Amino acid sequence: MNGLACKNPAMVQASDFAFSGLHIPGNTSNAVGSRVTPVAVTQIPGLNTLGISMVRIDYAPWGINSLHTHPRATEILTVIEGSLEVGFVTSNPENRHITKILKKGDVFVFPVGLIHYQRNIGYGNAVAIAALSSQNPGVITIANTVFGSKPDISTDLLAKAFQVDKSLVWQLQAKF
Amino acid sequence: MNGLACKNPAMVQASDFAFSGLHIPGNTSNAVGSRVTPVAVTQIPGLNTLGISMVRIDYAPWGINSLHTHPRATEILTVIEGSLEVGFVTSNPENRHITKILKKGDVFVFPVGLIHYQRNIGYGNAVAIAALSSQNPGVITIANTVFGSKPDISTDLLAKAFQVDKSLVWQLQAKF
Amino acid sequence: MNGLACKNPAMVQASDFAFSGLHIPGNTSNAVGSRVTPVAVTQIPGLNTLGISMVRIDYAPWGINSLHTHPRATEILTVIEGSLEVGFVTSNPENRHITKILKKGDVFVFPVGLIHYQRNIGYGNAVAIAALSSQNPGVITIANTVFGSKPDISTDLLAKAFQVDKSLVWQLQAKF
Amino acid sequence: MNGLACKNPAMVQASDFAFSGLHIPGNTSNAVGSRVTPVAVTQIPGLNTLGISMVRIDYAPWGINSLHTHPRATEILTVIEGSLEVGFVTSNPENRHITKILKKGDVFVFPVGLIHYQRNIGYGNAVAIAALSSQNPGVITIANTVFGSKPDISTDLLAKAFQVDKSLVWQLQAKF
Amino acid sequence: MNGLACKNPAMVQASDFAFSGLHIPGNTSNAVGSRVTPVAVTQIPGLNTLGISMVRIDYAPWGINSLHTHPRATEILTVIEGSLEVGFVTSNPENRHITKILKKGDVFVFPVGLIHYQRNIGYGNAVAIAALSSQNPGVITIANTVFGSKPDISTDLLAKAFQVDKSLVWQLQAKF
Amino acid sequence: MNGLACKNPAMVQASDFAFSGLHIPGNTSNAVGSRVTPVAVTQIPGLNTLGISMVRIDYAPWGINSLHTHPRATEILTVIEGSLEVGFVTSNPENRHITKILKKGDVFVFPVGLIHYQRNIGYGNAVAIAALSSQNPGVITIANTVFGSKPDISTDLLAKAFQVDKSLVWQLQAKF
Repeated sequence: MNGLACKNPAMVQASDFAFSGLHIPGNTSNAVGSRVTPVAVTQIPGLNTLGISMVRIDYAPWGINSLHTHPRATEILTVIEGSLEVGFVTSNPENRHITKILKKGDVFVFPVGLIHYQRNIGYGNAVAIAALSSQNPGVITIANTVFGSKPDISTDLLAKAFQVDKSLVWQLQAKF
Repeated sequence: MNGLACKNPAMVQASDFAFSGLHIPGNTSNAVGSRVTPVAVTQIPGLNTLGISMVRIDYAPWGINSLHTHPRATEILTVIEGSLEVGFVTSNPENRHITKILKKGDVFVFPVGLIHYQRNIGYGNAVAIAALSSQNPGVITIANTVFGSKPDISTDLLAKAFQVDKSLVWQLQAKF
Repeated sequence: MNGLACKNPAMVQASDFAFSGLHIPGNTSNAVGSRVTPVAVTQIPGLNTLGISMVRIDYAPWGINSLHTHPRATEILTVIEGSLEVGFVTSNPENRHITKILKKGDVFVFPVGLIHYQRNIGYGNAVAIAALSSQNPGVITIANTVFGSKPDISTDLLAKAFQVDKSLVWQLQAKF
Repeated sequence: MNGLACKNPAMVQASDFAFSGLHIPGNTSNAVGSRVTPVAVTQIPGLNTLGISMVRIDYAPWGINSLHTHPRATEILTVIEGSLEVGFVTSNPENRHITKILKKGDVFVFPVGLIHYQRNIGYGNAVAIAALSSQNPGVITIANTVFGSKPDISTDLLAKAFQVDKSLVWQLQAKF
Repeated sequence: MNGLACKNPAMVQASDFAFSGLHIPGNTSNAVGSRVTPVAVTQIPGLNTLGISMVRIDYAPWGINSLHTHPRATEILTVIEGSLEVGFVTSNPENRHITKILKKGDVFVFPVGLIHYQRNIGYGNAVAIAALSSQNPGVITIANTVFGSKPDISTDLLAKAFQVDKSLVWQLQAKF
Repeated sequence: MNGLACKNPAMVQASDFAFSGLHIPGNTSNAVGSRVTPVAVTQIPGLNTLGISMVRIDYAPWGINSLHTHPRATEILTVIEGSLEVGFVTSNPENRHITKILKKGDVFVFPVGLIHYQRNIGYGNAVAIAALSSQNPGVITIANTVFGSKPDISTDLLAKAFQVDKSLVWQLQAKF
């Protein structure tokens, strides 16, 4: 499916199914104050074709895991430390915003392909472990994709899409 | 998959597999200057479980079919009339913007889950016919979902996601 | 699935997702008076694994797109020009013939694996655009497959299958 | 997938997974000299969603299991008694006829959606057991579907499809 | 899916879809008194991606096809000769044992992934033909996997899993 | 797929996608010294059809999550606290035992349908979070299924399967 070949079953080793370091906090010193550490087919070759992967997400105080979608996976997340505001928005025409405050031990589901986010709503760090229903889920961060693609999407088009002045779009494009 | 029951095969009729009116231009008098006319499982009950649907898209001069994703479908589009600029952006970390000018008779593919758009780049109307690899593909328009969800996503969070002032987010939210 | 490898995502270009020429009428000067122009994984390599393809079908006056099946796809078709009689036959034991006259803008669905056809019922040309739920749907034209396979299916067997004289089968085999 | 509901797992019984009588020869006194005894989801409700079914096929001397397709299944067949000529035809444009003589204990595969047949090539009865990769594979017998649908496909269209006189089509339609 | 490449369709031959010898009784002179003769993708390369395979099972008097699972397939079995006791156990927490006596011509289904077995309950040989919903179903024989893996699972762990003395586990491990 | 109907999308609420309490240690006062807390479609109705679920596993010192399989899911596990010995056994004929010692932050994959286990190899408690590639993965604990099914599998058969005396089988059956 993804162009990776499968290893001969007789040659697989425990290391083909293992990864170390998910207990290490990710570096959240960045513009959004969060860091995702993925454990997918790139990190564990034995995941190929098996339809699952895992991530750790670290959040600085008030950090966000910005609006994004996974084109090939549903996500299930549990809070290990701290409190998170989470949400997703349903598809057209309703665009309902389904949101919830999660505390330690709470679990939440983000259905495949929907735009979703998490935000640390506390003064300490927050940590979540999440799993995705694909060994290669993909991530599309809305802001980066829309305003930071290479090359840029035309300013005219974005101005019309978001119904704002071009100057505003330039401002946004300059950030990404 | 979608909670719709299947009809008894002995009772199906030609009308369960048919729809009329895809030659009628959609009304493009709206903010983005385009209109999508869908022919999916809601319009043709016989499509249930069959994994395909069709749309007609009309574009006023310089109208856009704004940035959106289909959470459950790849799209293949052909231009019937006019010229379109089309594009999609690949997932993180590349966020490559793959774009092309399409003329009448050109065909283009938007892979499942990726953010994409079309824009009429001519002074006349443009028309496209597209097909999607699901009877119920779903549509998530980025601008409406992000800035027009019900209820709103918090202004703070959006300001951080797009790295702009809250006043700017308010402006955007007011549009949708 | 079909033995084609996937390209490295970092190397894809717009041309991997594009095709030109679907506005050009196909040559219908042949025994059945129709021509199918396919846009599938052979024409657009970027369609690989994405589960969709498109075709243009041209019909001379009274031309037919003869009885055929797609072993791996459902088809959805819309009439761009002219009028078509379309139909499919349900599986055993009912063998119900579901049929309809389509005018410009009408849409019809042919469920996966069922034998179906279209016929131009007008004195002018007809044109349809159709999409299929596979990047590699396959086509099995009944007459060619049954009476024109290489090598031939035995005349005895065909005579029994169609309950006619062998001389008649020879006549049919001579045509294909 | 097929509109059948699943039973509560706590209520299933052995009888939901069982069928009796596959050792009983089917009645082959009919025009083609064969009989198929199916064991699919209609006979065993517990097969629902499980993706497999079985059939017994009896052949009178020189009887045929006429040209047919299964729209949703690959078939694997083994000869229990007698000798069979079997074959399938590949899709367009090759239409290659892949054929083989099978003796007792031989196994052969008919790939999903392709037109195939079996013929008893001996003076005694023949018996085969086959399995299909769907609990509801469907059967489309070419001759019955093409010339015996209800209502008939138009004679004109069939005459053009098979490139023969209408009188010949009438003859064929009268048989089915 | 399994790392096997598909052959060029234009090069396939009848032999790519065929296997001989399923009428030959398997040698049941072994500890459990049964023998499985598989016809899967290893024996028939043309089965690749087609989702089905077949087996013959021979049983000496009172022989068993010991408790096992198929990680990727449902099984449907028919008795060709003799009488079999068959059964499977449902998953936690019920662990219901669904069992039945099968005579010649009876058919039974073992749902995907469940532990199941067959036992010849007669003084003569028994024979079954079964089909599986994968070209590469896999077999996990419980006793061999648990007590005969290479290297051994630790005796301590097995003693706790089966709640018996380590001496008993050693006895079991010595057998496999 | 599992007989559960889907809720009307317009009626879903955040509570349909949420669960609380995964931070609460499970009670490990039982024969094997472990406890699994599942978060699957029974706990979160919104998981229906989405292909993922999560569990927390608590282990008393030297406790085991006994040998088991998931008939419909691959599992990916990370250690939150303590150290675990984990392993799975490949299918016939190799029955290779792939095993590894996991420390906090280590991740390991158990491929779909294979028999696997975890054991706390420390003097303190251990905790793991795991995810499974199905909303309804199922669990088959080998010891309970084989020796504790209701009704029992016959002692004769089990004695042959494990190649031990019947008295030993009775001993095992008495435990479960």
